[in-house]
Amino acid sequence: MSASGPAAADEPTGAALYALVAELYPICRSITGQGVRKTLEILSRYVDLAVREVPSGTEVLDWTVPDEWNIRDAWVADSSGKRVIDFRESNLHVVSYSVPVRERLSLAKLRPHLHTLPDRPDWVPYRTSYYDKSWGFCLSQNKLDALPDGDYDVCIDSTLAPGSLTYGEVVLPGATQDEILISTHVCHPSLCDDNLTGIAVSVFLARWFSAIENRRYTMRFLYAPGTIGAITWLAMNRATAGRIQHGLTLTCLGDSHPFTYKKTVGGKSPIDRVVAHVLATAAMPHGVIDFFPYGYDERQFNSPGFRLAVGSLMRGRHGMFPEYHTSGDNLSFVSPDRIAESFGICRRVVEVLEGDATLMNLAPFGEPQLGRRGIYRALGGTNLPDVQLALLWVLNLSDGEHSLFDIAERARMDFRAIRGAADVLLANGLVSAKPHGGNAR
Amino acid sequence: MSASGPAAADEPTGAALYALVAELYPICRSITGQGVRKTLEILSRYVDLAVREVPSGTEVLDWTVPDEWNIRDAWVADSSGKRVIDFRESNLHVVSYSVPVRERLSLAKLRPHLHTLPDRPDWVPYRTSYYDKSWGFCLSQNKLDALPDGDYDVCIDSTLAPGSLTYGEVVLPGATQDEILISTHVCHPSLCDDNLTGIAVSVFLARWFSAIENRRYTMRFLYAPGTIGAITWLAMNRATAGRIQHGLTLTCLGDSHPFTYKKTVGGKSPIDRVVAHVLATAAMPHGVIDFFPYGYDERQFNSPGFRLAVGSLMRGRHGMFPEYHTSGDNLSFVSPDRIAESFGICRRVVEVLEGDATLMNLAPFGEPQLGRRGIYRALGGTNLPDVQLALLWVLNLSDGEHSLFDIAERARMDFRAIRGAADVLLANGLVSAKPHGGNAR
Amino acid sequence: MSASGPAAADEPTGAALYALVAELYPICRSITGQGVRKTLEILSRYVDLAVREVPSGTEVLDWTVPDEWNIRDAWVADSSGKRVIDFRESNLHVVSYSVPVRERLSLAKLRPHLHTLPDRPDWVPYRTSYYDKSWGFCLSQNKLDALPDGDYDVCIDSTLAPGSLTYGEVVLPGATQDEILISTHVCHPSLCDDNLTGIAVSVFLARWFSAIENRRYTMRFLYAPGTIGAITWLAMNRATAGRIQHGLTLTCLGDSHPFTYKKTVGGKSPIDRVVAHVLATAAMPHGVIDFFPYGYDERQFNSPGFRLAVGSLMRGRHGMFPEYHTSGDNLSFVSPDRIAESFGICRRVVEVLEGDATLMNLAPFGEPQLGRRGIYRALGGTNLPDVQLALLWVLNLSDGEHSLFDIAERARMDFRAIRGAADVLLANGLVSAKPHGGNAR
Repeated sequence: MSASGPAAADEPTGAALYALVAELYPICRSITGQGVRKTLEILSRYVDLAVREVPSGTEVLDWTVPDEWNIRDAWVADSSGKRVIDFRESNLHVVSYSVPVRERLSLAKLRPHLHTLPDRPDWVPYRTSYYDKSWGFCLSQNKLDALPDGDYDVCIDSTLAPGSLTYGEVVLPGATQDEILISTHVCHPSLCDDNLTGIAVSVFLARWFSAIENRRYTMRFLYAPGTIGAITWLAMNRATAGRIQHGLTLTCLGDSHPFTYKKTVGGKSPIDRVVAHVLATAAMPHGVIDFFPYGYDERQFNSPGFRLAVGSLMRGRHGMFPEYHTSGDNLSFVSPDRIAESFGICRRVVEVLEGDATLMNLAPFGEPQLGRRGIYRALGGTNLPDVQLALLWVLNLSDGEHSLFDIAERARMDFRAIRGAADVLLANGLVSAKPHGGNAR
Repeated sequence: MSASGPAAADEPTGAALYALVAELYPICRSITGQGVRKTLEILSRYVDLAVREVPSGTEVLDWTVPDEWNIRDAWVADSSGKRVIDFRESNLHVVSYSVPVRERLSLAKLRPHLHTLPDRPDWVPYRTSYYDKSWGFCLSQNKLDALPDGDYDVCIDSTLAPGSLTYGEVVLPGATQDEILISTHVCHPSLCDDNLTGIAVSVFLARWFSAIENRRYTMRFLYAPGTIGAITWLAMNRATAGRIQHGLTLTCLGDSHPFTYKKTVGGKSPIDRVVAHVLATAAMPHGVIDFFPYGYDERQFNSPGFRLAVGSLMRGRHGMFPEYHTSGDNLSFVSPDRIAESFGICRRVVEVLEGDATLMNLAPFGEPQLGRRGIYRALGGTNLPDVQLALLWVLNLSDGEHSLFDIAERARMDFRAIRGAADVLLANGLVSAKPHGGNAR
Repeated sequence: MSASGPAAADEPTGAALYALVAELYPICRSITGQGVRKTLEILSRYVDLAVREVPSGTEVLDWTVPDEWNIRDAWVADSSGKRVIDFRESNLHVVSYSVPVRERLSLAKLRPHLHTLPDRPDWVPYRTSYYDKSWGFCLSQNKLDALPDGDYDVCIDSTLAPGSLTYGEVVLPGATQDEILISTHVCHPSLCDDNLTGIAVSVFLARWFSAIENRRYTMRFLYAPGTIGAITWLAMNRATAGRIQHGLTLTCLGDSHPFTYKKTVGGKSPIDRVVAHVLATAAMPHGVIDFFPYGYDERQFNSPGFRLAVGSLMRGRHGMFPEYHTSGDNLSFVSPDRIAESFGICRRVVEVLEGDATLMNLAPFGEPQLGRRGIYRALGGTNLPDVQLALLWVLNLSDGEHSLFDIAERARMDFRAIRGAADVLLANGLVSAKPHGGNAR
């Protein structure tokens, strides 16, 4: 990447981001199975995606890749044969990883298998039972309340059998082996914000980045099922993991809550400072919260054996908005504008990481005479334009101890203004670039 | 102490704590003399107390043990012989360490020897004159105002003569020589909050601790007169002092003010963090204040030659409530419930110090699969119970750099929840204990 | 300087400070020329000032000393010959460093050369054009609006020719070569607050300091034109610059805004802490702001090649009050009382720097018995007077790691109270002085 930052590339429209979310919405994903494969197939129309299959039974860290789960149909029908709960209406109706079942049960016996949200009687909850061989249905409280006593036919036409776990990754090599990781989980069925928005932002971020010339970082985009997918990737990529310098898990990026950035476990990594800076200088309402060992796959990346500097960017917070993990997280809960805004933040984060450098002031004794070089106003007045203040900041702090990002953070100025000032000073021979600290390929 | 914390022991009732305060209340204590001896005699009914006598004239650090003061009676009587100020009514009426006197004086000549509280005309102040050979009486402003002119007979039947300074200590050995010091001053006469409540909490803390098996720390409970007592102890126990790792002076623990913890001079000792944590997780209103070189015997323990990590726990703050050092600090100013609450805080502080440990995660790459071990919920839902979040915190931070207390502080969870999670993980072989850092006996 | 601080010296009256401001006000100063020389001539009546002349064309760091500018007269006259803009009324009417001009112009052609303040239609702005060969006039918006169309005669009777740049300095040697720098710019014409008040405070500070015996620091007072003057001094005094331990630029010290202290670039220098302490303990409303690379000559002193610990003390902030760089900054904008207050703050800053020392407690085990030495109250009561608390603070923290200033800062007590307590303890042999850390002459 040139010193002046990534070459301009077209920002995707909110409509394009939303369209991908909408296309992925109906698919019944789980931590394994055809739903993930179909999802990755669609993504590969956008990016050069490598799809990996890891056989059931493979030992991965402390875990074992589970049997593959697939489902064709499922229902609960009343004595007249009418489906009262129907997988074809929404894949949320079946507890994910339900074992096959075909039985006739009284409502009383069926009840323990039915999950509702009493406080949100219209919504269907999302439930999973990955590591416990059981089965169940999810439905609205209203529907449950309307079920008459009597016997019901239950069918879950699923298979749970040796197969494989599927994940995808996109690797865009840069000048150095140092990596930026963008990770999203791809195991949720018909839920939009969590996490089709994260997937859409990630995919368009990969497209944007791939169009940039002279990239410094290698960027890796991971699309894997939550927890077991990240664990599988880590198990199979221990050496690669060590190259990750900065990372983000992306999730819940289409709702209208303020942004929340959840820090790495160390809390002081460059990614922590960069995301906070971008959100602050974008003047977006946002919060920055400390790491806690629950949430998404940042849990795995930050585990003590790896301690990768992976934070998490979201709008609505994990478990803290009512639509979370319910049928309320649908296509009307997310909006093209919000997804596009999220894309913009992610792009700026990458631009800072790519554009950062430590320069040396070549005229460090006093201020150099900028006016003589035509880069300072001629007529003394009261207020200095920001663009000139940025020049003075870069000159003052380019002492070998501060990177341009350090300067932007200290000056509380948008990194782009500082980077722009640095380019002017470079062009005028007033500062010199130090070689990037990255590890050569 | 076992890894799971001290064995359960009966919490003393507020009534028991208050009864001890009430029994000690009438005794006329000073920095030497029979009052201290009687007090320690009563305490020795509760705990195995060693009583020390240090002769007058002994050089202790920069000080000299003073002559012993004892008093039998004292009064001011009017010309009719009627006692208008009477030591038998309250020992506060005599300035502590008053030299013997037997004189007839006009009211005008008597006046400079009389101390009152003009702003609190009903109360009798508490005054001392340890190191200045003088005498005086304390009385209420109202009583003073009512004294008619005329001559008065004054009698202080005291003795100030070579004897000894008396202090007591209880030492409860633990597995290591590392010590926790609990220090209370025992020199105040009929004042309740300051410091009979501190004495009562300390004595019952010693009883509670003595019932615990497998104690790690050696606990030392010191009952000594303020300033000169602490200085005498330090002078005679220089080597022992070096073993003190954590300490508290306890005072004013029975009133209804919020808790105040006054930090050690360094301000970042484990005791500072532990007390703040216990008060915060107990959800008690409280304040934490910086060290200042005035107050109680933490002044001596924190002096530059010793720099022992001794903080001070109190409710009402030294000199900052009107009843302080007046007859208003009586049995109705303190309550059984508040003393019991104070005991509970102190006990929890000791439990944290005893229960802390640094563990190592034995499955540090990613999260271990807790569900397979039956210690994680099977059905994925929205909110994680705290007990399971505690497991994740211990796993994430058991990297050799964080103790369980560090984890509790960071997670803002009660230490007992973190310690409990650690015990579950130890039982499942997911973490291993490192030996305690303490110094072997 | 003796341990007990500077010998008392008469505080200048506000009237004396103001009188100097008033005397300097009419002079037309710029970055070179007779105005600066006349100014320094007046100052040399107060202090032993060395005046330096540096020839035009001299290379100074990245800059070149410019030609010398002098002006005798300037006006714009209407067709009747009446002066409508007149330098004799106020030297602000001419853009500083205007090249000579003698022309007849239509109002339309004249307009681009006329500067006003549309938002403050009564005031005349102050403008400069040091490094761009142009000319111009400043006038009030009201006057401009009243000018009829027509032709105008323009005359600027100035010279811009090789000469020299003039600056002055006062050096008051102390016991060590370590220096305190007080720097003020002397290039502004008829503006009072900025910076005749800074000059007046500096001059009287030099007088006060010169009267002190046994000074520790060498004090240097610099009176130089802004930017180019500081750069010239730095270029010619590289070795001397390295001796500067603490410094202040003084400006805008006569208005009635609260004080603002702008920190050094490092932000944690002793001068940063001392000024903040003095302002806080003086109970003056004030703000402390971070360094930014714009403002006054602290920019040059803090440049990466020098990094001198020079902060900036002001009341109204650079560019942030409406009168700044306008005719509104006149003799009625500043007041004797405010200038005197500013002097008092500066004097106390120097007193702290001079009076600081690191002492060692010679009785560090416990508290020494102050009462026996007659420096502690005899009768125990409730509140300790501050003067005795200061004794306890000095004893507790005189451990070789804390200077008296560190102690004052920590105790949040006026340095003078701490210094006074230290002197009492020195006199009683309870602490010993360590030699000053300064570099011998």
